[in-house]
Amino acid sequence: MTLALDRVAIVGVGLIGASFAAAGRDAGLWGESVGVGRNTQNLDRAVADGWIDEGTTDLEYALRDASLVVLAAPVDACVDLLPVVAEHAAADALVTDVGSVKVPIVEAADRAGIGERFVGAHPMAGGTATGAAAADPQLFRGRVVAVTPGPHSGADRVDAVERLWAAVGAEPLRMAAADHDRSVAATSHLAQIVAFALAAGIARDGDIAELERLAGNGLRDTTRIAASDASVWEPIFRLNRANVLAVLDGFDEAWKELRRAIENGDADAMSRVVADARELTRRLKRPAR
Amino acid sequence: MTLALDRVAIVGVGLIGASFAAAGRDAGLWGESVGVGRNTQNLDRAVADGWIDEGTTDLEYALRDASLVVLAAPVDACVDLLPVVAEHAAADALVTDVGSVKVPIVEAADRAGIGERFVGAHPMAGGTATGAAAADPQLFRGRVVAVTPGPHSGADRVDAVERLWAAVGAEPLRMAAADHDRSVAATSHLAQIVAFALAAGIARDGDIAELERLAGNGLRDTTRIAASDASVWEPIFRLNRANVLAVLDGFDEAWKELRRAIENGDADAMSRVVADARELTRRLKRPAR
Repeated sequence: MTLALDRVAIVGVGLIGASFAAAGRDAGLWGESVGVGRNTQNLDRAVADGWIDEGTTDLEYALRDASLVVLAAPVDACVDLLPVVAEHAAADALVTDVGSVKVPIVEAADRAGIGERFVGAHPMAGGTATGAAAADPQLFRGRVVAVTPGPHSGADRVDAVERLWAAVGAEPLRMAAADHDRSVAATSHLAQIVAFALAAGIARDGDIAELERLAGNGLRDTTRIAASDASVWEPIFRLNRANVLAVLDGFDEAWKELRRAIENGDADAMSRVVADARELTRRLKRPAR
Repeated sequence: MTLALDRVAIVGVGLIGASFAAAGRDAGLWGESVGVGRNTQNLDRAVADGWIDEGTTDLEYALRDASLVVLAAPVDACVDLLPVVAEHAAADALVTDVGSVKVPIVEAADRAGIGERFVGAHPMAGGTATGAAAADPQLFRGRVVAVTPGPHSGADRVDAVERLWAAVGAEPLRMAAADHDRSVAATSHLAQIVAFALAAGIARDGDIAELERLAGNGLRDTTRIAASDASVWEPIFRLNRANVLAVLDGFDEAWKELRRAIENGDADAMSRVVADARELTRRLKRPAR
């Protein structure tokens, strides 16, 4: 299958949507692009910056002639939008998304009757910046993109989505949606929740003399992602609830064990937790395969 | 008071000790330096690299002619060493340290009878690298150094220690030892403990497909300091126990509140925690004064 994409509809022109639009344009993946959003100022900016050719608040209009539909709105909104996409997009349009939770959207695509031509994806990119203003055509270079076919996804559809991501410099990694959701609960969602709690606990402490001046790189690194918006993460935690609660339990166990070790001055018990912790940092330091 | 330092003894030639020796040498702060340690290989390396002029395992020998003694061993070792320093260093030698906990060492100096000429200090520098091999004469440039005089520290002694740090490019910040210890429990020790627990919790999770490939910058940032050695932190947590337990309580409260919000799907309760978290990240982003 060749990627004959005349027109792409990017639904949600935030950091990821605008960056994908820009990267795809640079890679010559499509003839023209239309971005869909609710904030016309953001859309105008994305057009002015050259990330999209056209911006609209009218989803049905944008879907009409699109041969590729990329859902890049918040995950819960994408789930809700799938029946609209199924109804108004061209019958052979390829549909994909970039959301952080995959099982609910894969299931929604099947329910909407477009399971054959829907293939979920999730780029391991992004950060605390949001909006089209922070877009970067290089955002996906060298980044892993999980590609999570559903039970009915067509093999050529899966290939096409993987080739789209490879064309913008990313590294597609095919996996089951359920494996993805369980894994990112641990590799992404848990750290986000812990960073929020850590930063909040410190912010609420009224006894810190010279907080800004005493804070070193350790605290800055550890709390950096706590600058993220609650509205981005709330639907992710909600849609991935069972996996998130399981990893929260895992953290809580390690946390209580370490806390007890410190309370009891038990150096051996502390060393056991730290040894496991360092095993993770060693694994994360390995160069990407 | 001019800083007429013929000979400095650096007790503990790890990352901080060796870096301070190198920075002081570059700044022309002293005539010669002797490093004291137990690992002769490390001492030889520090001499070969030019950080110190001489290395020895004999503390009493090193103290004999030193006009400045810098204690840069683990905090608990420094507390234990102070009576030896009081007995064997020259009667007018200036004594300081670089430890992460200040009340115990300031009290130990008073008990040892050298409270007038002891001034504690703690540079907000360092990282997960350890040992003289990682030394860097620029390590303290632009870094805040807490300077914590005791109740009997001579005013000229305090000035001298502040001038030493200013001479290597650091920014001295005078504060009470008790304020320092309470504050670093929140700005440093808590993040270290939470990062250890987070990394251990994830490392113990057997269900993560493709951990290394799915992990993004968020997880890497959040767990970076978990690569630190337990033996560095165990004495710090032990010597700052009351303050550490207090901040652990503060974190535990925020953590339980956020966890409950996620369990209950309570977006408002989640937003309250996140709003406090973002207040911290905003404060940490302000440029240094």
